[in-house]
Amino acid sequence: MKIVAVDTYDIRFPTSLELDGSDAMNPDPDYSAAYVVLRTDSPVEGHGFTFTIGRGNELARAAIDTLAPFVIGQGVDDLGGFARRLTHDSQIRWLGPEKGVIHLAAAALINAAWDLRGKAEGKPVWRVLSEMSPQELIDLVDWRYLTDALTPAEAYDLLKAAEPGRAERAETLVRLGYPAYTTSPGWLGYDDAKVARLASEAVDAGYQQIKLKVGADLDDDVRRLALARATVGPQIRIAVDANQRWDVAEAIAWMTALAPYDPWWIEEPTSPDDVLGHADIRAALATAGPGGAPVRVATGEHVANRVVFKQLLRAQAIDFVQLDACRVGGVNENVAILLLAAKFGRPVCPHAGGVGLCELVQHLSMFDYVAVSGDMTDRVIEYVDHLHEHFVEPVVIQNGCYRVPQAPGFSAQMLPESLARYEFPDGEAWRPGR
Amino acid sequence: MKIVAVDTYDIRFPTSLELDGSDAMNPDPDYSAAYVVLRTDSPVEGHGFTFTIGRGNELARAAIDTLAPFVIGQGVDDLGGFARRLTHDSQIRWLGPEKGVIHLAAAALINAAWDLRGKAEGKPVWRVLSEMSPQELIDLVDWRYLTDALTPAEAYDLLKAAEPGRAERAETLVRLGYPAYTTSPGWLGYDDAKVARLASEAVDAGYQQIKLKVGADLDDDVRRLALARATVGPQIRIAVDANQRWDVAEAIAWMTALAPYDPWWIEEPTSPDDVLGHADIRAALATAGPGGAPVRVATGEHVANRVVFKQLLRAQAIDFVQLDACRVGGVNENVAILLLAAKFGRPVCPHAGGVGLCELVQHLSMFDYVAVSGDMTDRVIEYVDHLHEHFVEPVVIQNGCYRVPQAPGFSAQMLPESLARYEFPDGEAWRPGR
Repeated sequence: MKIVAVDTYDIRFPTSLELDGSDAMNPDPDYSAAYVVLRTDSPVEGHGFTFTIGRGNELARAAIDTLAPFVIGQGVDDLGGFARRLTHDSQIRWLGPEKGVIHLAAAALINAAWDLRGKAEGKPVWRVLSEMSPQELIDLVDWRYLTDALTPAEAYDLLKAAEPGRAERAETLVRLGYPAYTTSPGWLGYDDAKVARLASEAVDAGYQQIKLKVGADLDDDVRRLALARATVGPQIRIAVDANQRWDVAEAIAWMTALAPYDPWWIEEPTSPDDVLGHADIRAALATAGPGGAPVRVATGEHVANRVVFKQLLRAQAIDFVQLDACRVGGVNENVAILLLAAKFGRPVCPHAGGVGLCELVQHLSMFDYVAVSGDMTDRVIEYVDHLHEHFVEPVVIQNGCYRVPQAPGFSAQMLPESLARYEFPDGEAWRPGR
Repeated sequence: MKIVAVDTYDIRFPTSLELDGSDAMNPDPDYSAAYVVLRTDSPVEGHGFTFTIGRGNELARAAIDTLAPFVIGQGVDDLGGFARRLTHDSQIRWLGPEKGVIHLAAAALINAAWDLRGKAEGKPVWRVLSEMSPQELIDLVDWRYLTDALTPAEAYDLLKAAEPGRAERAETLVRLGYPAYTTSPGWLGYDDAKVARLASEAVDAGYQQIKLKVGADLDDDVRRLALARATVGPQIRIAVDANQRWDVAEAIAWMTALAPYDPWWIEEPTSPDDVLGHADIRAALATAGPGGAPVRVATGEHVANRVVFKQLLRAQAIDFVQLDACRVGGVNENVAILLLAAKFGRPVCPHAGGVGLCELVQHLSMFDYVAVSGDMTDRVIEYVDHLHEHFVEPVVIQNGCYRVPQAPGFSAQMLPESLARYEFPDGEAWRPGR
């Protein structure tokens, strides 16, 4: 089976009309996907995308078109080589390297190739990954720039040690699912009554963790966090998320003020590039919580690539690794990030939401549980209840857990009518007077 | 004066036909510019560009088009606000933030606005900058994410301390120029005889420093560096440049083997994102040279933004700051980087070459000398003798120094016939059988 054509789409949802998705840095996102279909010389197609929040989505799509010649004529048996071909072109590499628009595009193509691989094998991607041998998994990774923190041999040992019990853990997943947390109560645009109502509903629905957006106004944040804490009680974890709003000193001061309400983690306190800044914030908040408990630090949705994650881990800058399915170079680079997290003993709690990110990351966390970390302790996948209705196989949440996807592929395929309606700028959703 | 239109061009030079510009990571670059003209309601135009090495240049140009609406209707009196408007759009920011294609595009537009400002004032950009007050310079900078390393108040003090002597230093520059070093002898594609001949010619031409590319083959590198050292003698500085070819341990081993030939610096030993890796390499090579001299570490041409430079400085990871005129957000972000370098006492030795980078960075180094560091010690601007003939006001090198540009603007304007001939893919230079 060979890829014979690459179709691309600029898909945008006018989510800025509501205040869903509003936070301190992103007041009015239009959740969008630069969407790609890999057509083959067989009836099977691979679907994938990268996620953006509106303006500039045309650039991500154009970058997929720029990379398309590198996948034409390729199969999906050697997905390590497939991914490296997309990130190693000596001329295109100048545009990153491995960051920004060109890396978002690589993610879309690599994820689409994994969808194709899953469909060709008749299995969901988490299961395809979970059945690969340690050596096959090692070969997926681009090891350049990693070996000072993790060598292929160390990774092999780590994967080999997790081989026993793979089947039992897969069965556990099928039975119980994988824990989720929900950001739905916490958008900045919501008033206090809505925050309290949604927080209460989240607990009733079985979630053990919720998340609130912070960073626009300290008094508002104290009031909202106190309200949420009073609503859910002391046992439910409440994470907070500043979406890069602060400088280092401001992050420390602000979180010290919120610490009495026992926030579980502070997410994106500052620039995603600032490894040392995160380390300083984490150190300063190590005993800031009730009874000297730490305020933990999390980041990842804007972390450009495995090299930055490597440093966040080496510098003890984060407690949680929030990988994103579409920011880094797709499944392959996320395998590297899962291996790094396992080496450094940090739980992976993927970023999701937007459009389709929940659908993708569930596969990565489930693979992590079956074949890498072998552990669900303190691990949760973000869940946001937006836009799932546009997918052929949307995620299923039951009792605060992701149910295991069973359909072949990466759960990445959108409905044809959604692709038509939300294509920018000519789809019906974008016509004047929509 | 207001900007009324933004014209963009995809300009590529088929430099891969020669081996000029070949290194261990970039075997066949086609030096390119995503070029922009800001047209105004007056006869004055602002010209600017970002640099790429070929494929994907269309994405940089498209990104300029995406950002163009943010500059239409703007003037160039408040270039701090102008720059922040280009990097703070909440939706477009997702594509970086402040890195990759979208940041290259911001650089092109911001640099073009400075060209316009210089032309409007009838002065070269280095002089416009050098005549601004400390507070006006502070206001150019986006201080977000910097204040843990440098506050506006500290920067103000630093600029205030450098105010006395501005006029004398500007006169010194006009009289003597600014020291250059040349990379022309050192491309990997050149045979030994050509390396020796060009190295010898460089010394005869007055250069005190040359640079060789390394990283493809250790035996070749040892032989070429030994040859160059024998050719130029012990007094001329020879920098080497690996263009990100190595992992950390490999960089240390390789440079330990080259250290007996007294390399002045190792440039881009590993990933530009790897702050901690650079720190490890620098520490390991601190006494590796002859008589326990350090092998110094330099990087910058792929450093995404001021936040990464901040960390390279905080972590004592580099000896030289190689800012690039087009990689970060143009003049404004480079003012921030010059201030950071001054705070941490590290010389700035800009990256140049490619197409037009020499023309731009000379202004930044000259401004640094007049109004920021006030110092030329160990400071040199890279010089490569490519493609200057396409510029209206090409750089002038005399006795190994950049002569001061005197024409109004940023020396950024290409000849109309070059824009026509090298436009990709329809210019004459790209027609079959060219």
